[in-house]
Amino acid sequence: MTLRVGIVGATGYTALEVARLLLAHPEAELVAATSRAEDGKSIAEIHPSLAGRCDVPIETLDPAELAKKCDVVMCCLPHGASAETCKQLIDHNVRVIDFSADFRLSSQATYEKWYGVDHPWPERIGKTVYGLPEFYAEQIRDADLVANPGCYPTSAILPLAPLIAKQLIEANDIIVDSKSGVSGAGRSAKVGTLYCEVNESIAAYGVGSHRHQPEMADLVHRIGGQEISLVFTPHLTPMDRGILSTIYVRPRGGNAKQVMECWREQYADCPFVTPVDHLPATKHVAGTNHVQLTARDAGDRIVLVCAIDNLTKGASGAAIQNMNVMFGLPQTAGL
Amino acid sequence: MTLRVGIVGATGYTALEVARLLLAHPEAELVAATSRAEDGKSIAEIHPSLAGRCDVPIETLDPAELAKKCDVVMCCLPHGASAETCKQLIDHNVRVIDFSADFRLSSQATYEKWYGVDHPWPERIGKTVYGLPEFYAEQIRDADLVANPGCYPTSAILPLAPLIAKQLIEANDIIVDSKSGVSGAGRSAKVGTLYCEVNESIAAYGVGSHRHQPEMADLVHRIGGQEISLVFTPHLTPMDRGILSTIYVRPRGGNAKQVMECWREQYADCPFVTPVDHLPATKHVAGTNHVQLTARDAGDRIVLVCAIDNLTKGASGAAIQNMNVMFGLPQTAGL
Amino acid sequence: MTLRVGIVGATGYTALEVARLLLAHPEAELVAATSRAEDGKSIAEIHPSLAGRCDVPIETLDPAELAKKCDVVMCCLPHGASAETCKQLIDHNVRVIDFSADFRLSSQATYEKWYGVDHPWPERIGKTVYGLPEFYAEQIRDADLVANPGCYPTSAILPLAPLIAKQLIEANDIIVDSKSGVSGAGRSAKVGTLYCEVNESIAAYGVGSHRHQPEMADLVHRIGGQEISLVFTPHLTPMDRGILSTIYVRPRGGNAKQVMECWREQYADCPFVTPVDHLPATKHVAGTNHVQLTARDAGDRIVLVCAIDNLTKGASGAAIQNMNVMFGLPQTAGL
Amino acid sequence: MTLRVGIVGATGYTALEVARLLLAHPEAELVAATSRAEDGKSIAEIHPSLAGRCDVPIETLDPAELAKKCDVVMCCLPHGASAETCKQLIDHNVRVIDFSADFRLSSQATYEKWYGVDHPWPERIGKTVYGLPEFYAEQIRDADLVANPGCYPTSAILPLAPLIAKQLIEANDIIVDSKSGVSGAGRSAKVGTLYCEVNESIAAYGVGSHRHQPEMADLVHRIGGQEISLVFTPHLTPMDRGILSTIYVRPRGGNAKQVMECWREQYADCPFVTPVDHLPATKHVAGTNHVQLTARDAGDRIVLVCAIDNLTKGASGAAIQNMNVMFGLPQTAGL
Repeated sequence: MTLRVGIVGATGYTALEVARLLLAHPEAELVAATSRAEDGKSIAEIHPSLAGRCDVPIETLDPAELAKKCDVVMCCLPHGASAETCKQLIDHNVRVIDFSADFRLSSQATYEKWYGVDHPWPERIGKTVYGLPEFYAEQIRDADLVANPGCYPTSAILPLAPLIAKQLIEANDIIVDSKSGVSGAGRSAKVGTLYCEVNESIAAYGVGSHRHQPEMADLVHRIGGQEISLVFTPHLTPMDRGILSTIYVRPRGGNAKQVMECWREQYADCPFVTPVDHLPATKHVAGTNHVQLTARDAGDRIVLVCAIDNLTKGASGAAIQNMNVMFGLPQTAGL
Repeated sequence: MTLRVGIVGATGYTALEVARLLLAHPEAELVAATSRAEDGKSIAEIHPSLAGRCDVPIETLDPAELAKKCDVVMCCLPHGASAETCKQLIDHNVRVIDFSADFRLSSQATYEKWYGVDHPWPERIGKTVYGLPEFYAEQIRDADLVANPGCYPTSAILPLAPLIAKQLIEANDIIVDSKSGVSGAGRSAKVGTLYCEVNESIAAYGVGSHRHQPEMADLVHRIGGQEISLVFTPHLTPMDRGILSTIYVRPRGGNAKQVMECWREQYADCPFVTPVDHLPATKHVAGTNHVQLTARDAGDRIVLVCAIDNLTKGASGAAIQNMNVMFGLPQTAGL
Repeated sequence: MTLRVGIVGATGYTALEVARLLLAHPEAELVAATSRAEDGKSIAEIHPSLAGRCDVPIETLDPAELAKKCDVVMCCLPHGASAETCKQLIDHNVRVIDFSADFRLSSQATYEKWYGVDHPWPERIGKTVYGLPEFYAEQIRDADLVANPGCYPTSAILPLAPLIAKQLIEANDIIVDSKSGVSGAGRSAKVGTLYCEVNESIAAYGVGSHRHQPEMADLVHRIGGQEISLVFTPHLTPMDRGILSTIYVRPRGGNAKQVMECWREQYADCPFVTPVDHLPATKHVAGTNHVQLTARDAGDRIVLVCAIDNLTKGASGAAIQNMNVMFGLPQTAGL
Repeated sequence: MTLRVGIVGATGYTALEVARLLLAHPEAELVAATSRAEDGKSIAEIHPSLAGRCDVPIETLDPAELAKKCDVVMCCLPHGASAETCKQLIDHNVRVIDFSADFRLSSQATYEKWYGVDHPWPERIGKTVYGLPEFYAEQIRDADLVANPGCYPTSAILPLAPLIAKQLIEANDIIVDSKSGVSGAGRSAKVGTLYCEVNESIAAYGVGSHRHQPEMADLVHRIGGQEISLVFTPHLTPMDRGILSTIYVRPRGGNAKQVMECWREQYADCPFVTPVDHLPATKHVAGTNHVQLTARDAGDRIVLVCAIDNLTKGASGAAIQNMNVMFGLPQTAGL
């Protein structure tokens, strides 16, 4: 029996990536898509790469109707708006994977400080599983609601959490320098992401103030069992897709070789996480749900390098992986 | 009287950038160009962007002949090979700006360790001015030989040296995470810099082992008066030009505001170095000799961001600026 | 039973694309790969995007051994060299899909004129099926050897052939202006395809002399039943993948609407060819085996626009599609 | 005495290019800039690449005030709006170079048909010089108002007009297939020119309906003395700058060699137009006011290829060139 999947908020790049991945999925199918702005069109009119491949109509969201049609809904709305919709959907008994940040953090206070809004459903903060099957597959299996991870956090938590758990590195001296493709900035019309603004250019943004910083710290703490402090700097890089995080850590006696061994052991059964000997490039994982990781000694630091595709493992691929876990399919189905 | 300029090693991108800049220079002119491989062609056959604009013939290098024709020679050869040619040219009484690393470091031992060759002219190590007019204009004015700075070092020395000199930051806890356009890798045919290898991708390389690291440390020490240790990671970024260096330093009591003030004072009379309030992008300085710098507080660190064009201020523009100083022209002539 | 697939000439981009597509194929698997230059490495060392996903070893080609291991071999060698290897493989009773131009043309004289070499196996010229299942599925089904189409020809034959067959357009006044991504130029180290040579630039090449011109003319003739003459200009475009062909034809009484109807009828049962109302962009088909086509009236001409991915429908995707037909699988399996 | 230059409509890419070029101009200086939306900022806040280099404040347009401050005004407003402003400025006795299409065409009817608006100052249609100094230097010298040419038309008129004038080609069988960088689409926030929409993609647009088609036909007629008909297809190409026009013409007895000779004679005294033997790439002219042209025989056609930078020779560089002519400077001053 094929899983019936719905998308709420179908106009953006993560929604397109969900649709693209579902076209290749052997056991799941896109059956519904909603967007206030584009009601009445087909999804292929919004995303011309789907022409001749997918003709799901775009509708205005009606949670009760959508819940009837779907086994699972991917909610691709902005934070704040998303939590309310998730609540309505779950009230109508459909399982939800939420792409926003609304249920990722463990503390309401941290959420409200960094996101500047009152949380619409605070009861679920700290009681929603974080959708990283590499650590939380058990809880994801039975969840009604999964908080799909942020793109930058995925690229930092996977390398850091096991090293903190094994106490291989200092917890209070971590620098995460990340470089992201432009699709991470979304598909709304802004001068700042016009082609001629960002092409042939690289720039830092949100220095010391990006909302993914508390998410990284929170999750590494929850997984690794130790509070950490880190400095995080994201950069906008002239490419569609990909995140490369270069992470500077201070060893507690060990070295890059021990880091690689720790990862090899930790991720031995994880089909998407691969410690590699070469220096990973974002191109090596582009369009896939794979993660490439390496470590190098450099002076008094160890440099960790992690490459993911921000739209796949950093968003929609992770959501499919979560869906697979939720419905008892192999994690790799369709990926 | 127009300055007569020669280029040795005319086939690469830095040579083309010298030729491009000289076309706009009011007091200097390209009069000769050499390359073993392309003898007999015109420079516009090697660099079609010069068609109809410059028709200097490519010749095989004859140091005596070249010295007669030129007031100054830009030597764009690889390290090792360059030092020998510089010696021959200077013996024939022409002033030389050397683009290689051969005369940048203050210690022969450091040079031979990092470059893996015996130095062909060790007498001049430690006795050649480093071509950063922001600090060494006096010595450049009278020099027969100028060591033109490396591209990455320029982007790190300019922000760091004054902060070390003023003891605003810790000297032994510095991380330089740099992102460079592909032109920095040169114009020889290699699979690694083919379009389809590096386009739509970012990757670190030379982690912990890049030769520009000792150059940064050496110069910050010489200018700032204090030994430093740093970790340097360069990244290959999908763009033609530009370097963005994101530098993580630990303040000694101060903050980003004091860093900006220190720079404003230090560079008040430097026409190419501009502390800015926005976060600089490489596009803001592309094709120019300008440097944009900013500082931001972030947790227990200060994040410094410096943008240059690797081919201009990072190579050929700096060479023109040095030439201007050597011949008593305004630093900005033709730039 | 899973099809066992081998690749000869495993270092290039078409080989990587075959490997990538096979990873998602439900009924076929890469079991062997050869390359003289890289013998002893694994395929993931040559193509780091395969790390952790595929570890087939690279061997030196032994046709007898390879034929034993495989049900079908994808031969990714250059023209001339390819024909000889195809012959050896077929002599050992394995079916072959040839990526070179060696068996595409119907005339030995045309081949030898345009490719400048004696044909190593002239008996098979004119007696090898052209691997365009949209027209030749019957013959492909039983073929021991399939000539996989050229990338540019695919983008011109699909729109033109039905219009010639239906006599909707003049046969002797056709202009094909094509724009290709850089991967079409291959993966060997050449200055001309270095990133900094082709990035931020578009240029024509091979004007009036490109070898895909006779292939287009030959196939449109064979399919459409009428000799045609055309002018073909390829352009190198700063992107990894994709071909957009803008084709100027002169109508014989009809218009763009009739062209669209002709295509809709012709390709009604072809899963990969989609006439669309929008103007197709190469991005709409990137990474897929799909073809988007449209037609517009413009003065006394009709302008046809066809978008494909040069590595997928223009090479490796077409090969998988051919393999599917050869072995009785649905054309869309794994695509 | 330095020329005082003003810009009306300072937020776009052509305005930035004017400012960039004036920074290098020995005899002209930017003294004023206006924009309704950005009143009160400095121009460097709108265009961060000007930081530390130009601090002209952005004001709301007051034609009388601006006319007092300036010797010449570059009017970078959209069509319709531009004509009104040009009239007010000229009424206040300042000379104007208009970047819009408002005064380019020789017929009011054609203008109103293609632009869909009533013309605000129809008296000047057909009585305003077209700013192509290669043909109209005399009239530009004394003009109060110059209609700066469109980018695509520049790339088609320069190759075509002399061939029509010399009757080397058929006038009614011309196809212009043009490829433009994205800056031609302007700097307003639209989904269609977001980085992730146009990067790694090429597409045709405005097939058979682009407004530059009548401009090309009109000017070739006026210069060449013969009515022509042409089909024009523009394409959006993933690069910041540049236009490559590939033009298919039918010879009247001659060939590519004669075309090259015709151009060499026509443009012998034009410093920016260079017939070249190689196939020009847009990169060869990027950031310059230069034009590279070549011709090749191909079947029964001659293929003309013309490369310009759309922002320089296609807009702001042409405006500086026009300004130079208007004020008796060498055409090449500052270019």
